[in-house]
Amino acid sequence: MLLENMSYVEVEAYLVEKDIVIIPIGSCEQHSPYGILGTDFITAEAIAREVGKRMDIVVAPTINYGMSQHHMGFKGTVTLSPETMVMFVKDIINSFLEHGFKRIIFINGHGGNIEPIKTAFHQIKFEGKSGLLELISWFLLPEVQEIERDIFEDKNGYHATPSEVSITKFLRPDAFRNKPSEKKKINRSQVYFPLSRDEFRQAYPDGRMESAPWLAKEKYGKLIMEEAVRVIVSRLREILKTKIL
Amino acid sequence: MLLENMSYVEVEAYLVEKDIVIIPIGSCEQHSPYGILGTDFITAEAIAREVGKRMDIVVAPTINYGMSQHHMGFKGTVTLSPETMVMFVKDIINSFLEHGFKRIIFINGHGGNIEPIKTAFHQIKFEGKSGLLELISWFLLPEVQEIERDIFEDKNGYHATPSEVSITKFLRPDAFRNKPSEKKKINRSQVYFPLSRDEFRQAYPDGRMESAPWLAKEKYGKLIMEEAVRVIVSRLREILKTKIL
Amino acid sequence: MLLENMSYVEVEAYLVEKDIVIIPIGSCEQHSPYGILGTDFITAEAIAREVGKRMDIVVAPTINYGMSQHHMGFKGTVTLSPETMVMFVKDIINSFLEHGFKRIIFINGHGGNIEPIKTAFHQIKFEGKSGLLELISWFLLPEVQEIERDIFEDKNGYHATPSEVSITKFLRPDAFRNKPSEKKKINRSQVYFPLSRDEFRQAYPDGRMESAPWLAKEKYGKLIMEEAVRVIVSRLREILKTKIL
Amino acid sequence: MLLENMSYVEVEAYLVEKDIVIIPIGSCEQHSPYGILGTDFITAEAIAREVGKRMDIVVAPTINYGMSQHHMGFKGTVTLSPETMVMFVKDIINSFLEHGFKRIIFINGHGGNIEPIKTAFHQIKFEGKSGLLELISWFLLPEVQEIERDIFEDKNGYHATPSEVSITKFLRPDAFRNKPSEKKKINRSQVYFPLSRDEFRQAYPDGRMESAPWLAKEKYGKLIMEEAVRVIVSRLREILKTKIL
Amino acid sequence: MLLENMSYVEVEAYLVEKDIVIIPIGSCEQHSPYGILGTDFITAEAIAREVGKRMDIVVAPTINYGMSQHHMGFKGTVTLSPETMVMFVKDIINSFLEHGFKRIIFINGHGGNIEPIKTAFHQIKFEGKSGLLELISWFLLPEVQEIERDIFEDKNGYHATPSEVSITKFLRPDAFRNKPSEKKKINRSQVYFPLSRDEFRQAYPDGRMESAPWLAKEKYGKLIMEEAVRVIVSRLREILKTKIL
Amino acid sequence: MLLENMSYVEVEAYLVEKDIVIIPIGSCEQHSPYGILGTDFITAEAIAREVGKRMDIVVAPTINYGMSQHHMGFKGTVTLSPETMVMFVKDIINSFLEHGFKRIIFINGHGGNIEPIKTAFHQIKFEGKSGLLELISWFLLPEVQEIERDIFEDKNGYHATPSEVSITKFLRPDAFRNKPSEKKKINRSQVYFPLSRDEFRQAYPDGRMESAPWLAKEKYGKLIMEEAVRVIVSRLREILKTKIL
Repeated sequence: MLLENMSYVEVEAYLVEKDIVIIPIGSCEQHSPYGILGTDFITAEAIAREVGKRMDIVVAPTINYGMSQHHMGFKGTVTLSPETMVMFVKDIINSFLEHGFKRIIFINGHGGNIEPIKTAFHQIKFEGKSGLLELISWFLLPEVQEIERDIFEDKNGYHATPSEVSITKFLRPDAFRNKPSEKKKINRSQVYFPLSRDEFRQAYPDGRMESAPWLAKEKYGKLIMEEAVRVIVSRLREILKTKIL
Repeated sequence: MLLENMSYVEVEAYLVEKDIVIIPIGSCEQHSPYGILGTDFITAEAIAREVGKRMDIVVAPTINYGMSQHHMGFKGTVTLSPETMVMFVKDIINSFLEHGFKRIIFINGHGGNIEPIKTAFHQIKFEGKSGLLELISWFLLPEVQEIERDIFEDKNGYHATPSEVSITKFLRPDAFRNKPSEKKKINRSQVYFPLSRDEFRQAYPDGRMESAPWLAKEKYGKLIMEEAVRVIVSRLREILKTKIL
Repeated sequence: MLLENMSYVEVEAYLVEKDIVIIPIGSCEQHSPYGILGTDFITAEAIAREVGKRMDIVVAPTINYGMSQHHMGFKGTVTLSPETMVMFVKDIINSFLEHGFKRIIFINGHGGNIEPIKTAFHQIKFEGKSGLLELISWFLLPEVQEIERDIFEDKNGYHATPSEVSITKFLRPDAFRNKPSEKKKINRSQVYFPLSRDEFRQAYPDGRMESAPWLAKEKYGKLIMEEAVRVIVSRLREILKTKIL
Repeated sequence: MLLENMSYVEVEAYLVEKDIVIIPIGSCEQHSPYGILGTDFITAEAIAREVGKRMDIVVAPTINYGMSQHHMGFKGTVTLSPETMVMFVKDIINSFLEHGFKRIIFINGHGGNIEPIKTAFHQIKFEGKSGLLELISWFLLPEVQEIERDIFEDKNGYHATPSEVSITKFLRPDAFRNKPSEKKKINRSQVYFPLSRDEFRQAYPDGRMESAPWLAKEKYGKLIMEEAVRVIVSRLREILKTKIL
Repeated sequence: MLLENMSYVEVEAYLVEKDIVIIPIGSCEQHSPYGILGTDFITAEAIAREVGKRMDIVVAPTINYGMSQHHMGFKGTVTLSPETMVMFVKDIINSFLEHGFKRIIFINGHGGNIEPIKTAFHQIKFEGKSGLLELISWFLLPEVQEIERDIFEDKNGYHATPSEVSITKFLRPDAFRNKPSEKKKINRSQVYFPLSRDEFRQAYPDGRMESAPWLAKEKYGKLIMEEAVRVIVSRLREILKTKIL
Repeated sequence: MLLENMSYVEVEAYLVEKDIVIIPIGSCEQHSPYGILGTDFITAEAIAREVGKRMDIVVAPTINYGMSQHHMGFKGTVTLSPETMVMFVKDIINSFLEHGFKRIIFINGHGGNIEPIKTAFHQIKFEGKSGLLELISWFLLPEVQEIERDIFEDKNGYHATPSEVSITKFLRPDAFRNKPSEKKKINRSQVYFPLSRDEFRQAYPDGRMESAPWLAKEKYGKLIMEEAVRVIVSRLREILKTKIL
């Protein structure tokens, strides 16, 4: 049930029965020489749509750009300022609230989005709106992280992870025809966060954050994505039972 | 050449040769009971990607949300405020400029986006940045409007046009399985613009603006889209020859 | 009927009968060595006041500053940022709406103002206000452009045009006592828009945009201004008949 | 020396010799049934231009709108929000600073403008710009207030004063053909400031603030204006001697 | 009666009887080598709390940071931008208004705060809120300035005054154990305001503005503070009698 | 080493040796009928100052107001909007960075502040500044939470916790003279976050969030505060060893 394929008449009918919408959100940012710039929205979108399909929940068009300032040292990254992102997310939420949606679920593929999205949630509440606003970052789900440890041990790292690269490989095998696969060293460094673009490039010269993206395989991607979907489905079941105040 | 499928290393290589990027932009807004909410970004994206393919130009991820306040009287529409949209577009452009892109081309599927995008262009220039910023709204190309008149005569109208519905039908036939097809009256009314959501709903009760979307056919969509692509390709050829000041 | 010469009691009386107000808007920006910095608001003000006089419509004080960033490479130009201009125009409109004005007509003398003003219109509508907001740029009226072609053929150009210089010459002959009058070359160049101040200065070294301001004459100014007034009067007659939604 | 009548070439020549500019600023706001809506910018403009003439200083186009929220309970008043006004004034100042003006003098006719203008001054300095920014409100000059007391004793009040009405009467006698002249009571009330539009209307039902505008006479206007000009000329002489840090 | 030590239940009880709150506000900025960075909020807080105690008025937590851009040339100074300060003060006021407070009194220790605070007051009123907003800068009270002249003659100056240093010495004698006490020259210079950080440092190389802070004594501090408290108490008595519109 | 008691000369000397500053931040918000409105800044300030004392680190003046919109249903709560808070925190950080501080540590007493503060961190980095920005919320330290579980078992809850009430009781015993102490029921409810003021009041009618503040004792406060100080000291030791990129 993709919102983009529905007419407003169909949305009206949907709203008679349900008040939930899923919004996939990611970013366009470097994922090392091994991964692709769209990784974060491609994974979020695929997971969100599969969840929507299994639960008959409307899935909104994907937000393809996010807060990626720290990756700007690498070509092709696009970033919103955190202040812009707060306003952007607020407008999206307000639109759905105005139509009568009451459970607005962001399924997120990028860590840098978390705080601006939550700040937008607070701003919406500051302005007195009611409704359940939820942010689910698939890569932070404990069940997902467990599988990642099972497969990649201590080599998943924090960015350009073999986990997210596996999912994109599973979803878009063609995009990986000419990507590299040789092993590199994993450096464990003690750094603080957040980092500016220059600090990031200094700390992580090729864009990886302690990860081994060369370990990515399509079959792992399928497995991890399935687990993310399963867990989110079960979370949304809880959310559907929650009483709106 | 989708940016989302490239690594930053591949973007670096691209930038050695070229300095142009295409960004598709649309909106998520009602298109009458006949058309789908994603119409504007689906058409812009398809046209942009075909142009990119023919010209070996990088195409950025699509901006799926735009300025659609006047359609908010219809469920499922999502809108940015004009002020947010200016900031959003500005951040996107600044990101590409920072990487060395010098020709930034928005291919646009929605009229309401035009003024905020251009205001963002002016703001970028106010801030002293150099580079060629171009907005091409495919539905305003004279050659496209000529074909539309040939096919739909005076029934194309201004919103939920048979032209744009034809293209989405061509691109996503499945989405139209259960959409209506009966004829309705076309009212020609004298209204002023812009309209608020309430004024719009009063002027255009079912969301059409003097259009006959029931006339849409896949084959027309193919034809119109091809013409849009052809014309934009030729425009971009000119743009590639333009000297950056 | 200048608003500035009325008391609030007189405005109250006016509002019993009418709900329309005209606001002249221009800019303070270079108009080549031949023209004067106030050209855009002087022309807009004179046209607006003549229209107001003929139609018994209140004319508000002139907005003398606009969005002129591209002319900042030339001394004396003053510019608002596009973002400031959106807020400024929004506040002006909101004030009139609050008093019960329902038809708010900007008569504009400067191209750079168009998109920020329209973005402000959209923002007002985004905020849910009703009322007819209209922007009339006198120099874009087809009837005016026809006269210009008749008189100046292909030498009117796009900035510091003999047309606007003629009007200011007609209105303020004394200001032209010491202005130059020698002929220069007209260069036709292929440039993109918008331009930053540096790009503009590079493309148009003396501030003219393909124009021949030395052709300006008082009598042409009188003629062109009269045509602009005539056309706008007839447009406003239509607007007065339009139903407010 | 009106900036609006100069070309940029003439401004270039001026800047070789001088670095000072005067900007008249007022408002469009009610001045009781006795006074006119343009009072504050008409007085500021006339004083500023006379000063400019006597001292060969460039006078910029007048800012006709200001911060008049408290008068919005009376028809015809137009107000900027204080936040907008800060941005607006900042943009104007920045434009002049960019051209090399170093002494930027606002001659002001309206009390409500003072704090937003000064907040803009501070914001400019916060952003690290150098230059002398000065605000002269003619009605607060001690010498002017002395003359006012001599003529109107304790009946000048604080708004729609016979002093400012006298000046506008002197400058625009025709505007007063149909204005009332009967005496009313002067109420001295204890109120706090600032007031909202509703609070103001409650405290000052006809828009006067403890003033007797019926005492206004053209000859007083001439006298008071002359004194304002004289004092400002002498202040600007001091300012011209001040060293720019 | 410190708000910080009360529970919301106690505030509810207070609001049944009274509608006034005092908010101390200062800054963290250099006060020459003789004075301490907290001077402005320490003095404002002490005065405000003593007033609150004598009059049984609730005193809110102190705002410790203000608009101190001109002192940024000296280490340890912290400044809000004027634009941020307007928003900050507005939020504080709105919170108290929302709870039913109707008399909101800022007791201020820093000159640079005055215009942003008043601009915030105007913005609140622009947004249509009712209530009495008052700013009392203790160092500008005529009675206080008289005592200062009595004690320090023409050596109080404008910043890092012996008056404010005396009060902090009285309140925090330990903080002055290792502060210098030798005499320096007092330079009277002709400067304009406001100044940027660089201009300020140039005009006042050690941070004093024509003051002799070495004259500060605890006993003077006690005396001056007592006078400030006495005068403010009497002002608040008037304010408590004022009718809220 | 309180910044407020230092002169700028002393800060200069400090900066020769160290580049770290601690900023305590809390809020003014309801803490049930058992706790006091200042709880969050009082605890943060006391912990921060003790840490500063043990480590010879400068402690800045406390930020007494934060993002507390959800508590606005209870009298005495004061809240910044999230958007204001981002700007406020950004200005504070920028001031310290400008002076050469490179390690800026916020010690935080309030959950609602976390996301706006982190969004401000990201905005600072988006603007390209270098330096280590750290937020330590004492109540989220695992070691502190362990002690809390030891003492209060499952009755600490999430707001107006016996832990934070114990600390304020330890620090300000007098403030608790007339506070209640009777036991109430603890309701475990399933709610979503964030909540608006109305939703919060509905979910938590007396302001507690599953907590038993009547269990608070001074001796527990002393114990918990000591543990918080101990853990933060050890964290800051790590931070002092971190290389600034």
